[in-house]
Amino acid sequence: MKVKVEIFLKPGVLDVQGKAIEAALGGLGFAGVTDVRVGRVITFDSAAADKTAAEAEARQMADRLLANQVIESYRVEAA
Amino acid sequence: MKVKVEIFLKPGVLDVQGKAIEAALGGLGFAGVTDVRVGRVITFDSAAADKTAAEAEARQMADRLLANQVIESYRVEAA
Repeated sequence: MKVKVEIFLKPGVLDVQGKAIEAALGGLGFAGVTDVRVGRVITFDSAAADKTAAEAEARQMADRLLANQVIESYRVEAA
Repeated sequence: MKVKVEIFLKPGVLDVQGKAIEAALGGLGFAGVTDVRVGRVITFDSAAADKTAAEAEARQMADRLLANQVIESYRVEAA
């Protein structure tokens, strides 16, 4: 089963990568682009029996390894 | 309009971050996790008029700035 974990900085935490990209896009002529946020996405194959089990396992992984919960939040999705 | 650009290493390009995470997850007792891939996800608000225009603009951004097309591929999604 394919599982995807998306990790973003929490709202309110300054996203310097996002700001840099926003400025660079403006410089390239892409106007009207705002609120750029950069995150990580981690995908993997899970041997979990079903979608619920796979998502529960992925949340444990995010809690213990993948995300820094002080400044980051995450979303899991199994399909 | 919210736009999301997901950028991954192309298949065949060694994903060292993914390998490191896979090994670390194994060490934490998460068995059955394979093919871990790590990518970036960039979200932003676009002033584009509709979904088609927003996605076309996002593809241009990815081509020109966000992705290194030698080793990376991307997927855009507007909603």
